[in-house]
Amino acid sequence: MTPAQIDGFMGEAIQEAKKAAALGEVPIGAVVVLNGQIIGRGFNLRERFHDPSQHAEFQAILAASRYMKSWRLTGAQVFVTIEPCIMCAGLIQQARIESVYYGAADPKAGGVESMYHILSDSRLNHQVAVYPGVRAEETGNLLRHFFRAIRQRRKQEKIKYQANQVTK
Amino acid sequence: MTPAQIDGFMGEAIQEAKKAAALGEVPIGAVVVLNGQIIGRGFNLRERFHDPSQHAEFQAILAASRYMKSWRLTGAQVFVTIEPCIMCAGLIQQARIESVYYGAADPKAGGVESMYHILSDSRLNHQVAVYPGVRAEETGNLLRHFFRAIRQRRKQEKIKYQANQVTK
Repeated sequence: MTPAQIDGFMGEAIQEAKKAAALGEVPIGAVVVLNGQIIGRGFNLRERFHDPSQHAEFQAILAASRYMKSWRLTGAQVFVTIEPCIMCAGLIQQARIESVYYGAADPKAGGVESMYHILSDSRLNHQVAVYPGVRAEETGNLLRHFFRAIRQRRKQEKIKYQANQVTK
Repeated sequence: MTPAQIDGFMGEAIQEAKKAAALGEVPIGAVVVLNGQIIGRGFNLRERFHDPSQHAEFQAILAASRYMKSWRLTGAQVFVTIEPCIMCAGLIQQARIESVYYGAADPKAGGVESMYHILSDSRLNHQVAVYPGVRAEETGNLLRHFFRAIRQRRKQEKIKYQANQVTK
């Protein structure tokens, strides 16, 4: 895959992440690619659906599996804006994904390089090639801006609450 | 939880596993329990739905999340006939499950004691109590009988095929 293609597919994952942000969900997005075509898309919707499996790459892989009518996605690539968690890394390994491209690392919960190295574990029955740091600043900024906005909103609500207490 | 209760809930998980076997799927079953009541059930249906996430405990947890309208299942117990894989262990950890009771270990893919110790990892934001070996022989036998039957069927098909070749 050429650098321009990699950039382009990560751009598609970023578009998915922005859909999550628009709904107030943590902005993480993903696409699954096979033979140069996108066969699955997903974005984080964990709060909306009360569903712990609604991570972006998880939903993109399930969409691709439905499309391919197979839980084996041999030869497919996953593009995801943030390092997959342990659960998603487990799914990627089981689905026989060929390679994973991701943006920023997730030091607190990442299952690919930060906490565990599930995709390169030679004891398991399939290994996945890993390409970290694709448009990493951009994908990391999506998250940073999202959480900064939440903190600012909470701060303003606190100031408002305290002002109300004083005027009572 | 008393030994009789633990045995009883594992019995429910075994009933789920038998539903999978009846459909020709690998016989693994699970239930999720909260305050002594079953709030989610699941059995392995990976082939039927072309869906790599159709593991028994995964589906039982999603059912429980829908029932509770929350992806956090604080205080809940999972009973599953076989040691959870890496993906399912990741989900159990994220769903804030209190404890996991399982039967036989899975030396090739287990994420709880065999390959990884995801549920007791003190670096993660939540730890899960683990009780292995519940009705282990029975749950292990379910799998052994299932795979033995598959091997025998394949052997008979091979003998039949060779006999046909000879008579041609």
